[in-house]
Amino acid sequence: MSKEIVSRAADYSQWYNDLVIKGGLADYSAVRGCMVIKPYGFSLWEHMRDQLDRMFKETGHQNAYFPIFIPKSFLSREADHVEGFAKECAVVTHYRLKNDPAGGGLIVDPDAKLEEELIVRPTSETIIWNTYKTWIQSYRDLPLLINQWANVVRWEMRTRLFLRTSEFLWQEGHTAHATSKEAEQETLQMLEIYAEFVEQFMAIPVIRGVKTASERFAGAVETYCIETLMQDGKALQAGTSHFLGQNFAKAFDVKFLTRENALEYVWATSWGVSTRLVGALVMAHGDDDGLVIPPRIAPYQVVIVPVYRGEDQKGEIDLVVGKITRELKAAGIRVKYDDSDHNRPGWKYAEYEMKGVPVRLSLGSRDLANQVVEVVRRDTREKMSWPLEGLAAALEQLLGQIQSGLFSKAEAFLKDHITPADDMETLTSILDGKGGFVSAHWDGTPQTEERIKELTKATIRCIPLDGDTVEGKCVLTGKHSARRVLFARAY
Amino acid sequence: MSKEIVSRAADYSQWYNDLVIKGGLADYSAVRGCMVIKPYGFSLWEHMRDQLDRMFKETGHQNAYFPIFIPKSFLSREADHVEGFAKECAVVTHYRLKNDPAGGGLIVDPDAKLEEELIVRPTSETIIWNTYKTWIQSYRDLPLLINQWANVVRWEMRTRLFLRTSEFLWQEGHTAHATSKEAEQETLQMLEIYAEFVEQFMAIPVIRGVKTASERFAGAVETYCIETLMQDGKALQAGTSHFLGQNFAKAFDVKFLTRENALEYVWATSWGVSTRLVGALVMAHGDDDGLVIPPRIAPYQVVIVPVYRGEDQKGEIDLVVGKITRELKAAGIRVKYDDSDHNRPGWKYAEYEMKGVPVRLSLGSRDLANQVVEVVRRDTREKMSWPLEGLAAALEQLLGQIQSGLFSKAEAFLKDHITPADDMETLTSILDGKGGFVSAHWDGTPQTEERIKELTKATIRCIPLDGDTVEGKCVLTGKHSARRVLFARAY
Repeated sequence: MSKEIVSRAADYSQWYNDLVIKGGLADYSAVRGCMVIKPYGFSLWEHMRDQLDRMFKETGHQNAYFPIFIPKSFLSREADHVEGFAKECAVVTHYRLKNDPAGGGLIVDPDAKLEEELIVRPTSETIIWNTYKTWIQSYRDLPLLINQWANVVRWEMRTRLFLRTSEFLWQEGHTAHATSKEAEQETLQMLEIYAEFVEQFMAIPVIRGVKTASERFAGAVETYCIETLMQDGKALQAGTSHFLGQNFAKAFDVKFLTRENALEYVWATSWGVSTRLVGALVMAHGDDDGLVIPPRIAPYQVVIVPVYRGEDQKGEIDLVVGKITRELKAAGIRVKYDDSDHNRPGWKYAEYEMKGVPVRLSLGSRDLANQVVEVVRRDTREKMSWPLEGLAAALEQLLGQIQSGLFSKAEAFLKDHITPADDMETLTSILDGKGGFVSAHWDGTPQTEERIKELTKATIRCIPLDGDTVEGKCVLTGKHSARRVLFARAY
Repeated sequence: MSKEIVSRAADYSQWYNDLVIKGGLADYSAVRGCMVIKPYGFSLWEHMRDQLDRMFKETGHQNAYFPIFIPKSFLSREADHVEGFAKECAVVTHYRLKNDPAGGGLIVDPDAKLEEELIVRPTSETIIWNTYKTWIQSYRDLPLLINQWANVVRWEMRTRLFLRTSEFLWQEGHTAHATSKEAEQETLQMLEIYAEFVEQFMAIPVIRGVKTASERFAGAVETYCIETLMQDGKALQAGTSHFLGQNFAKAFDVKFLTRENALEYVWATSWGVSTRLVGALVMAHGDDDGLVIPPRIAPYQVVIVPVYRGEDQKGEIDLVVGKITRELKAAGIRVKYDDSDHNRPGWKYAEYEMKGVPVRLSLGSRDLANQVVEVVRRDTREKMSWPLEGLAAALEQLLGQIQSGLFSKAEAFLKDHITPADDMETLTSILDGKGGFVSAHWDGTPQTEERIKELTKATIRCIPLDGDTVEGKCVLTGKHSARRVLFARAY
């Protein structure tokens, strides 16, 4: 019962869309560029969100909520910031509709024009720093460690489910500090939390790095990022953490009284990850039969499918499954029993394979007689027959193996796809061939960066924090280079 | 160290604002009608949200996410619906800003006008039923039980923090069913879940009822509600659950194949509660010294304040508090240790009284010597000295007492404020005097309802589900009345 997924080899882009839609993660909507996140996809996002939220709270952050609208004038306060976002803003100009007196149906009421237009937030630095002005007076009010889970809108011309949508869900942390050093430490701490989350929970290895000036967040002094690699050899930025210096404090006049009784501008950070991570998950682990979801964030980790003829057999299986389910839940395993009678077992196997459920159990009357259960791993397809006795402990172990197996596989792929290049021909041929990251020397100028992008469609993904720091000669200009950086084509 | 709250008697409205702002729940924002939910207020909302979310999931509902924007034409599809919402819509007309070539700064780019305007969702029936059209084909796809946690915008002219804001946070459930009966059962089930939540967790007693036609949700066949009573004698609608019949299925052409192979329109419900509940909480339990938060939803249930001179004493207290904190956390009690050295104990006592923390402990060197701790209840102000031994169990019990004590007090107040009236003079004098609900006969016509509203500023809050059903004569017209209904002035 194939759901007709296009294979990665045949059409990688279509394969991705097939997995997202047929795997039940998301759907197109009637609104251009906006998606509907379906229940299975949203449950996945909830598991990701809840884990991140725990990590934020463990490091002293609190959640809050700021308005969705930003007065147009706020955007202009920070020069780089407005430059970065003005071109993709959804603008609210009116606050009322009415029936057209000329019979044209429902129209915007021209009498209800806003004095100042409102922007649907593309990010919230401006409205938040305008608020911080009233919250921060003295060093006693610092650090202020706040996060917000919210929807944001950036009007994208070319959209793709999860990867680039006009509206997306994310979290944005906005912190305020008394010193530059403390703000820089916070920036790096959050980068580390993102890296830990993506590696440990999503089973995707990351490269930690810093962006070049031209790839920096609009308004940041320094942008740190984690970069990941997809199966088609393209890079995907999975999260960013910005050191904002005093830029927004100056733009919104946020000063504090120091211990020494002096007035100083506050130091800032901001950091975010979004539903884009779901797209990364699909492309990092999926295969030609569907999604492959790492156990630690899977909506359900184990699905049980009964195989029976007639109600009597079903009743016997139900009893045993009831017991298994209680045991698994007690062990903290998320389990679903699919005993719906609309579909046959084979259909269900394909369905849960498509949905990427880490482990599928099936249980028939013969299994019952032998006190065993069929266990199938989604990642390796390995099929086993396991005793019912001690099942919960065995499954716990198996889920751990699957989690680490997925990471190891992705890690091997990443390591195999960081390739050095010392001339443009090599750089281009790697990008056109095996793909992945190319480690090359760069003379440090935006002009060279731009020229290489024009020639190869590759950008500098980051200057890796733990990369090769030997000096050399720029791959394009031959000029001096302080160190290698990572180029890649990217999502 | 008073925070200068106006008393309820002096200015109830200002008292409310003082509690919200000085209690750390919310703040005004730079955007007209929108508020900032501060960390303490947001933590309260998170506890409320998480509990509701558990109750929704336990009854088989799943979360999903739909676009924030609704095409203007969608609103017009259901005639009553558009009538109800067109006058308070935030309308997105453009998708780009640019620098004014005439030097006027940042302006809306006239070249970036949307072909069809988008409405920032005031509620999501239309966009969701447009999606359900593609999700529902057969009875096998039903019931579809979906909930969304989201922000919505209704352009209000007169706003109040939490109670009436242009943007607010809420959940909206949208379910689809094969039969009218099943949809009606769902409507009532969700009403019951709301009632249980508000009574058991927020400690606010509710009246379950049905709205009159003129108070119905725009597009509903029947609107059920839970009504609560505030300390100033005004009613507050705390949640609504709507039976939508086939109205939205017809508007968006959503049909399904029945078991008998016939095509029929799908039956619908929708239901929601919002951050308005936080306002209800403030007004139901607060007093002249600040907030009073019921333990089951309190961000922290117990706060510990150390009383010491010098670092030596502090070190001893820290050790004991560390032990207490571990014990309380192990017992599932949310505890905060405030050992900040900026403020003195007296300041902290006032601060946590203001914030409504259910129990405050304070611990000094003499307490340590005697192995006791001072325990102060926020609700009754009772001050006790308790042995450290067995503290967790004793506090668990105390928190339970506070929870039920708050409910009992509010319940007695509610019972004391449902007053029968058989003529307009009595009705008016009750409303002008003690306030609360007035149980009176009504002839069932919208004209009479409207006239009474003009005369008294009171509306029919609901026809209570378990109220007096003896017939009588309308309080205004003397015409036949099937039963008494509840009038009140309301938020």
